[in-house]
Amino acid sequence: MRIAVLGTGMVGQTLAPAFARLGHDVVLGTRDPAVTRARDGWDLELPLRPFEEAADGAELVVNATDGRASLDVLARVGAALRGRVLLDVANPLDFSRGLPPSLTTPGDDSLAEQIQRAHPESRVVKSLNTVNCKLMVDPSRVSGDSTVFVAGDDPEAKAVVRDLLGALGWRDVIDLGALSAARGLEMWLPLWVGLMSTLGTTDFNLRVVR
Amino acid sequence: MRIAVLGTGMVGQTLAPAFARLGHDVVLGTRDPAVTRARDGWDLELPLRPFEEAADGAELVVNATDGRASLDVLARVGAALRGRVLLDVANPLDFSRGLPPSLTTPGDDSLAEQIQRAHPESRVVKSLNTVNCKLMVDPSRVSGDSTVFVAGDDPEAKAVVRDLLGALGWRDVIDLGALSAARGLEMWLPLWVGLMSTLGTTDFNLRVVR
Repeated sequence: MRIAVLGTGMVGQTLAPAFARLGHDVVLGTRDPAVTRARDGWDLELPLRPFEEAADGAELVVNATDGRASLDVLARVGAALRGRVLLDVANPLDFSRGLPPSLTTPGDDSLAEQIQRAHPESRVVKSLNTVNCKLMVDPSRVSGDSTVFVAGDDPEAKAVVRDLLGALGWRDVIDLGALSAARGLEMWLPLWVGLMSTLGTTDFNLRVVR
Repeated sequence: MRIAVLGTGMVGQTLAPAFARLGHDVVLGTRDPAVTRARDGWDLELPLRPFEEAADGAELVVNATDGRASLDVLARVGAALRGRVLLDVANPLDFSRGLPPSLTTPGDDSLAEQIQRAHPESRVVKSLNTVNCKLMVDPSRVSGDSTVFVAGDDPEAKAVVRDLLGALGWRDVIDLGALSAARGLEMWLPLWVGLMSTLGTTDFNLRVVR
């Protein structure tokens, strides 16, 4: 399928080629393609488009932007989000007061819900935000199966994301129900950051054990 | 050692006899012992004292009260907390707006830190708040080892808690460092509640896999 990956930081740079390797038709969205292409070390061969154009014709749009910029970026994309499945992997982290980070969202809201409210005709699914981007596309980086989650209000949109997760190698996928469960998924991040500091690696995840 | 368990709800009723079975000298603290003893179904043989007296002579004080009441209860205990290891297993959950719950603390604070600030001469350790109380005292309720955490500013106090965790059967204990890491541990709860709803059980936990 046609996938637009918005954001050319570490997350976008990792997701886009992984989706392309799975056989998808991938376009990267960025603020200014010329600036991104001129970046030291930029070596992705995938098409680069301004945010305003990247989502045109995409069946799946992936928000891989910095959580603090996501709402602004998606406002630029605007009408092209109508009807689209919008996979939100971003986190609204605020490191301005040091560690542990806090979230920019209040406790009764989430970035995913803010995006859904701003784009009511899109179909937002929160997933993959609970792991580092290298693990997103290669769950075998940790030993055995570990868990990822999906949350969203549209069952068909979640099915599209679950198919993609399966293709990436995720076998333990828990559907938490409505998009409001994204609050818990985003609130996991302060603990994730604490674990990263303690373990000295980003190659870890949680496994839900019963 | 002498352990004072503050709170006679499900958590206190589960922790206190488990500590007694390990050979500790356990006292339960409650608002009004006569009222607690008269409660339908109350069958614990352990000493019941008013909060004001329960912590006298205790080496370890356990905050097993409802997170919304914890600061008030601990204010009653007052001076008896000086120098004590204070194991905080409570969560500042707010269910007043339905599910998912939010937290009563802002994102750059935690109940554990509020308790530490209110009682600077106590030595607060956050632990066990990430699992259901039955699992707290019997980690074998889930398959294989799962993970619990400790966070606190006093290494000796953490060692006391780690010994107790070991005696309860916890083998995978991760020390997240300073008490500020309690923020991440408390922010795990909205995801925990979502998992409880999805899985239909409280017998689950996370395992950190690398």
